[in-house]
Amino acid sequence: MAGYVSDAVIRRLPGYYRHLRELEAAGVTQISSQELGRRMQLTPSQIRQDINCFGGFGRQGYGYKVSELKGHIGDILGLDRIHRVIIVGAGNIGAAVANYPTFSREGFETQAIFDVEESKIGKTMNGVTVRHMDDLEEYLAANPADIAVLALPAGVAQDTLDRLYESGVRAVWNFAPTDLNHSDDMIVVNVHLSDSLQILSYRMAHRDQD
Amino acid sequence: MAGYVSDAVIRRLPGYYRHLRELEAAGVTQISSQELGRRMQLTPSQIRQDINCFGGFGRQGYGYKVSELKGHIGDILGLDRIHRVIIVGAGNIGAAVANYPTFSREGFETQAIFDVEESKIGKTMNGVTVRHMDDLEEYLAANPADIAVLALPAGVAQDTLDRLYESGVRAVWNFAPTDLNHSDDMIVVNVHLSDSLQILSYRMAHRDQD
Repeated sequence: MAGYVSDAVIRRLPGYYRHLRELEAAGVTQISSQELGRRMQLTPSQIRQDINCFGGFGRQGYGYKVSELKGHIGDILGLDRIHRVIIVGAGNIGAAVANYPTFSREGFETQAIFDVEESKIGKTMNGVTVRHMDDLEEYLAANPADIAVLALPAGVAQDTLDRLYESGVRAVWNFAPTDLNHSDDMIVVNVHLSDSLQILSYRMAHRDQD
Repeated sequence: MAGYVSDAVIRRLPGYYRHLRELEAAGVTQISSQELGRRMQLTPSQIRQDINCFGGFGRQGYGYKVSELKGHIGDILGLDRIHRVIIVGAGNIGAAVANYPTFSREGFETQAIFDVEESKIGKTMNGVTVRHMDDLEEYLAANPADIAVLALPAGVAQDTLDRLYESGVRAVWNFAPTDLNHSDDMIVVNVHLSDSLQILSYRMAHRDQD
């Protein structure tokens, strides 16, 4: 990867990956910066800048090879490796993550699901068994996980994050609607659903000002 | 609201609202820009700039009144009104949205859920009945909705969005993992879960460069 990449470019990477995957699935082998820009609502020059920024692909006038560029961006995103995932919380969001169609294809392999509710223990979600939270530490000692998904109420999220850290987990995908304190050597990415809905609401309220 | 507000500030608004709600729930009545900045991982001067930007609150040395600021930001976010919501797709994500604890408190009222699967029709989620997609147009003609939540597979998302537009819906919260074409007078906010997981994966892959 060529040097410093800005946060704005990093945020756009998954969008590139998604569009290239769709193009590949549609049988498109080659795409120009004009056409990719039209799809992604970016200017052709923005597209060329971004792609130069992460490695310099394509030749002037020839466009980009879809599979090659998708593979390259996938590598940058770390999709070239397997991530062992555990899900903490077997509610609707935990189930949505366990059943999300593209995750396993992209190397995110759910190995275990944890919950506190007795009625859920022993059941399976997408083939993965739900275990009791009491067994979390013992499980992780025997089966280290790369990523923990926090799909539980805000009130228990911090305690659970601390337990995961103690057990060696260093990356958390947090769906609990709260910001968590964590050590600098732990990566936490939040999916605050409420934030996204509030942005929609903001844009509706200020629609006439656009 | 005082003039132009940048996208970056708008993106931070839900974070302010969430932290102020937590502070209010904890009984905190007054907060300094230092303390709010520490919680939100922003500098005190950034906090003061942001808050000036959306209206000029607080007095030098006294800090901000938590409830007043929360109310003001809630108004800016459009949380001072009721939004009539329908959910299209009664799978895990649809169920997660229907059951999300804070949405109804913030004025997002789910009025109907739609699906194509016969086994789900007539059941309820959080007290709301699941209806058949065939009845979408008739339902919306009698019961206009402000927001439609798209919680369905990517392959049927565009057709569904077009049907919603025809029926007068002008705001969509889209969970389908694809970017949708829509008219300029429709607001679409995407929750691409895969994007967020890929950002986590990116940060894990580039951890040592931080």
